[in-house]
Amino acid sequence: MLRRCWCEQYRAMTSVRDKLLQELNPGEVVPPRCKVTIVGVGQVGMACAFSILQSGVADDVTLIDVMEDKLQGEVLDLQHGSLFLKTPIIRAAKDYSETANSKLCIITAGVRQKEGETRLNLVHRNVEVFRKIVPLLAQYSPDAILLIVSNPVDVLTYVAWKLSGFPQERVIGSGTNLDSARFRFLMGERLQIHPSSVHGYIIGEHGDSSVAVWSGANVAGVNLQSLSPDLEREQDSEVWPGVHKNVVDSAYEVVRLKGYTSWAIGLSVCSLSQSILRNLRIVHPVSTLVKGLHDIQEEVFLSLPCVLGWPGVCGVLNQPLREHEAYQLKQSAQTLWSVQRELSL
Amino acid sequence: MLRRCWCEQYRAMTSVRDKLLQELNPGEVVPPRCKVTIVGVGQVGMACAFSILQSGVADDVTLIDVMEDKLQGEVLDLQHGSLFLKTPIIRAAKDYSETANSKLCIITAGVRQKEGETRLNLVHRNVEVFRKIVPLLAQYSPDAILLIVSNPVDVLTYVAWKLSGFPQERVIGSGTNLDSARFRFLMGERLQIHPSSVHGYIIGEHGDSSVAVWSGANVAGVNLQSLSPDLEREQDSEVWPGVHKNVVDSAYEVVRLKGYTSWAIGLSVCSLSQSILRNLRIVHPVSTLVKGLHDIQEEVFLSLPCVLGWPGVCGVLNQPLREHEAYQLKQSAQTLWSVQRELSL
Amino acid sequence: MLRRCWCEQYRAMTSVRDKLLQELNPGEVVPPRCKVTIVGVGQVGMACAFSILQSGVADDVTLIDVMEDKLQGEVLDLQHGSLFLKTPIIRAAKDYSETANSKLCIITAGVRQKEGETRLNLVHRNVEVFRKIVPLLAQYSPDAILLIVSNPVDVLTYVAWKLSGFPQERVIGSGTNLDSARFRFLMGERLQIHPSSVHGYIIGEHGDSSVAVWSGANVAGVNLQSLSPDLEREQDSEVWPGVHKNVVDSAYEVVRLKGYTSWAIGLSVCSLSQSILRNLRIVHPVSTLVKGLHDIQEEVFLSLPCVLGWPGVCGVLNQPLREHEAYQLKQSAQTLWSVQRELSL
Amino acid sequence: MLRRCWCEQYRAMTSVRDKLLQELNPGEVVPPRCKVTIVGVGQVGMACAFSILQSGVADDVTLIDVMEDKLQGEVLDLQHGSLFLKTPIIRAAKDYSETANSKLCIITAGVRQKEGETRLNLVHRNVEVFRKIVPLLAQYSPDAILLIVSNPVDVLTYVAWKLSGFPQERVIGSGTNLDSARFRFLMGERLQIHPSSVHGYIIGEHGDSSVAVWSGANVAGVNLQSLSPDLEREQDSEVWPGVHKNVVDSAYEVVRLKGYTSWAIGLSVCSLSQSILRNLRIVHPVSTLVKGLHDIQEEVFLSLPCVLGWPGVCGVLNQPLREHEAYQLKQSAQTLWSVQRELSL
Repeated sequence: MLRRCWCEQYRAMTSVRDKLLQELNPGEVVPPRCKVTIVGVGQVGMACAFSILQSGVADDVTLIDVMEDKLQGEVLDLQHGSLFLKTPIIRAAKDYSETANSKLCIITAGVRQKEGETRLNLVHRNVEVFRKIVPLLAQYSPDAILLIVSNPVDVLTYVAWKLSGFPQERVIGSGTNLDSARFRFLMGERLQIHPSSVHGYIIGEHGDSSVAVWSGANVAGVNLQSLSPDLEREQDSEVWPGVHKNVVDSAYEVVRLKGYTSWAIGLSVCSLSQSILRNLRIVHPVSTLVKGLHDIQEEVFLSLPCVLGWPGVCGVLNQPLREHEAYQLKQSAQTLWSVQRELSL
Repeated sequence: MLRRCWCEQYRAMTSVRDKLLQELNPGEVVPPRCKVTIVGVGQVGMACAFSILQSGVADDVTLIDVMEDKLQGEVLDLQHGSLFLKTPIIRAAKDYSETANSKLCIITAGVRQKEGETRLNLVHRNVEVFRKIVPLLAQYSPDAILLIVSNPVDVLTYVAWKLSGFPQERVIGSGTNLDSARFRFLMGERLQIHPSSVHGYIIGEHGDSSVAVWSGANVAGVNLQSLSPDLEREQDSEVWPGVHKNVVDSAYEVVRLKGYTSWAIGLSVCSLSQSILRNLRIVHPVSTLVKGLHDIQEEVFLSLPCVLGWPGVCGVLNQPLREHEAYQLKQSAQTLWSVQRELSL
Repeated sequence: MLRRCWCEQYRAMTSVRDKLLQELNPGEVVPPRCKVTIVGVGQVGMACAFSILQSGVADDVTLIDVMEDKLQGEVLDLQHGSLFLKTPIIRAAKDYSETANSKLCIITAGVRQKEGETRLNLVHRNVEVFRKIVPLLAQYSPDAILLIVSNPVDVLTYVAWKLSGFPQERVIGSGTNLDSARFRFLMGERLQIHPSSVHGYIIGEHGDSSVAVWSGANVAGVNLQSLSPDLEREQDSEVWPGVHKNVVDSAYEVVRLKGYTSWAIGLSVCSLSQSILRNLRIVHPVSTLVKGLHDIQEEVFLSLPCVLGWPGVCGVLNQPLREHEAYQLKQSAQTLWSVQRELSL
Repeated sequence: MLRRCWCEQYRAMTSVRDKLLQELNPGEVVPPRCKVTIVGVGQVGMACAFSILQSGVADDVTLIDVMEDKLQGEVLDLQHGSLFLKTPIIRAAKDYSETANSKLCIITAGVRQKEGETRLNLVHRNVEVFRKIVPLLAQYSPDAILLIVSNPVDVLTYVAWKLSGFPQERVIGSGTNLDSARFRFLMGERLQIHPSSVHGYIIGEHGDSSVAVWSGANVAGVNLQSLSPDLEREQDSEVWPGVHKNVVDSAYEVVRLKGYTSWAIGLSVCSLSQSILRNLRIVHPVSTLVKGLHDIQEEVFLSLPCVLGWPGVCGVLNQPLREHEAYQLKQSAQTLWSVQRELSL
């Protein structure tokens, strides 16, 4: 009923608008230049949307979800903040045609693991979800970058790559960008230095089997390992390696305490979006097709430091790895492949 | 256990830090310059916290709540985004002593209306909540501005004023700042003009009995009523007055659709915080003590356009009101007073 | 010689880069999405460039000028600040082909009035300057918006419109946007309120014969004239009308004191650029073709409140004017036309 | 005369203001919280002021210079841009009492080298300039951080330290922060990566005898030297070492081309100001008292990576240096001392 009112009001308003404004070329419709579509309006999707809106990087933020009421409510709530934002278009898409001409599509949708469910089964169920999303996104925005946030992110980035038919550089998983941010925060807290001055990369599989590249961890180019040679030795487990363990644990800790994670992943995805949409060519660890790198033969996606810009992944860094780091990457690749080979895409 | 690990790690880390850094005056503790405390980590409190963090206006954001797990989880999640933020301190306060020296305290805590509960009863219950919050905030930050967001906001701002013993200019309710933002968005949508160029104020009581001051609604100084003299007449109900109705309805619509409102109130509170903390002297409609203004005799808080800065409310605008607008303000004042007189503060 | 070195270094660097980076699609060249060309690297052009760079609104800022050394020096100086900026491309164009695909072209170039030179003669000389600029800009960026800043801005906007062959909505003069900002600052200073909350428009011809629309001057919708009915009467010349006089005088005062104006015009142009490039549909007073508005018959450009977005001027506001305000607009139109009719374009 | 008018206007305005606004506590004067004083309104001082204003980090920017007209003109020009800024106070100080309570004082004033003048003579003349500035800044803002930008920056930072009597951590020279930014830009240009992802430090004396710490130059922790072992060998002079040479040369090149440098130093100083004023604890290479570090015995200031925050320099990083790097630092220390010992402070 509210809707009906609005329509009539809009018609009636025409007279006020006509009196107020001498329009030039009112008929012309200009395509969006920097449109972002976000699929999924759960806690993660909304934290991404809100971060991106407040950063002002997009000129059109379109949300889509199967939960129609929730979708309408979230978008209305965001629109009510328009006065404080610099994004002229915020909208709920009724169907995928309204996502057309996106420069970036962020997928946060997906089902969660049920108790006792195998990982493979979870992936199967999410593949079904992605089947309903990815081909439509690809159809309406054939030149977009796809940024996958749903978990398990590395497998699902592969799935999105297959389902979209996009070239590899245009399908990216948010991967270990957040893990690395946590890593840098935890080191910075210990050193009393802002994380932007504490450098370190977590690469590989997002989550438990990620790899901390200690050889490159540094402040102002000063290698942290050189200051404490035992930095990552297992037997010295209480010190720095604990930092990596904390990175892994802290995601679980947040989930245990508040039920889900949202703010940090939102900020992390916003940061990736800015590098992509503004063509900044900044280096981020994100999930990319790693076949042929670090001796990996499988067609899998894992996080490595990547240069991000308009083309998506502009390049992957050849980071020298220690033997056990490379070994762990390969292990992850095999594990992922054992899951992926079971999927019919 | 995680905590225990951390402690030991911190101790062990000292050696790395000592090797890395030649500290100057390590013992010195500098008091915060622009600390914001937010009470309540529900959806509203967190949207406020996140907006304020992303805007970078504060150098210390301290959260406090009685739900300890939720509080820890939210703060940990925010801290994990530190790399992307410019606020060096984000923390969960264990008790109110950790909120000391705040420049601004934002209260979002409060209980919700139970089914069938009278408004008076709700207020009574929230007064009990405020008794546990306001005196402690006032004790540890005796020079802070108090910004009340909890509902019913006008009564609770009065309650906070009484409980704090602060001068009137330092106790502010978020009031109709959000209602006005919605009003401007809805008009802007109809006119196809950005809400920042569409001016209009909703004043009075936050919620159903708020007053739209149509006489001042304008674009570029062009009075909208002058373009459509029937703009707010009841008999012409389908047109612009519908805009005010929509403002009122849309809050309910968001609650119906997603269960609560969060993003727009977060942005609205962030905007107020910036004007206060940066001493901008920008005009916002917020809830302030109106006794003596517009012929109101009661000691109540209602929203009027206020100039906000370091002192809190620097001044209240003498907005000329039509008879029925002034009448409605007085009615609200009496209604609020009838509630407030029952409170023992 | 320095240049030669660089070339060889670049070649030699290839090996380092090849070792560091596994590039994906290195050959692909992506056209800019939000490129701004600024013609003229004098104090005004550079203040515009610097404002726009720091605001981060563009992804490519290209400067061009006939003074090659100065141009190279300014661009090198800006590039050295790249670490602190989010604009990936900053460059000096050797010729207009390098300005191709601009979304916005800002012209600040032009000769200054010689002592004793007639205004007409000045215009003639600047027409010659524009002949070398405008057709080339139009050729390489046929869909761009042209924003003219050079003085006399209203005549030169007309000249740019004629020389470009662009539709009227895509040729804009910075006009009285700065005069209005000064107006609001001066009123705000007197009222102790931030200029963003003090509304008022200066329209018409940029400079001495501009018109202050007092009927629309307001704070929070409160008409300032209603508070002081003599607000703009000539006989009461010491009070508010002095504000308009100060607006006119203060430009001269800045020139007298420091030799030129730069910072405020840079910020003003940056604000216009953001509204245009981000399609914000914010209202600004800028110089637009006014034939047919306010009873003006001449084909001249004067400032009126305009809605700015991707199409350039999306609409012009029908601001009700008092008799003497409309009269002054018409006078300005005739004066401008008497100059323009002498031009052969 | 203009001034006289203004005064009367202000008086007359009181009536409008009184009608518009019901002031609360109008008499109260609140001290600034984040005031920045900039001494010197030449090209460097103004680029610093404009950067800081546009970044919005300060709530009061006060400029002071002996050239009164220029000072008034520059400040008036900045004030005219107030609508577009979030800094409520921008002012020209008539004398140093108006700089009181600054949190940060930036000195850009100083005389330039005359043709044929010895460096020592230049320093002597600038010591005389500093005698008129530093004690007064220290007197009115006894807790401020002093940030010296005037050249030769390392000697003058020592001079400011002596003249102020401030503890060492509160006297900082802008030093090689800009050299490092140029270094990172030039490497980034060669690698096609944003300078914020290309890490490298130039330390030591600002200018010709600065030291590039190649051992720490890296992208994503990947040491650039490891990719090209000859990276900085003299005999391989055309490649990367050329980058350091370019850093040194490019300052001269900008001066040759446009007459001075301004934009990059403005952005560099703005970045330092943000880290200090917001207590960010970010690492920057700045000039600090190095006695006792890297085996240096002289009481001289040289740039090393420092953690910056409210206390000024919170700590200096123990960067491992190669023999020839440490040697060059010591040489610089001796050269500087040979100049400083001749000064009577």
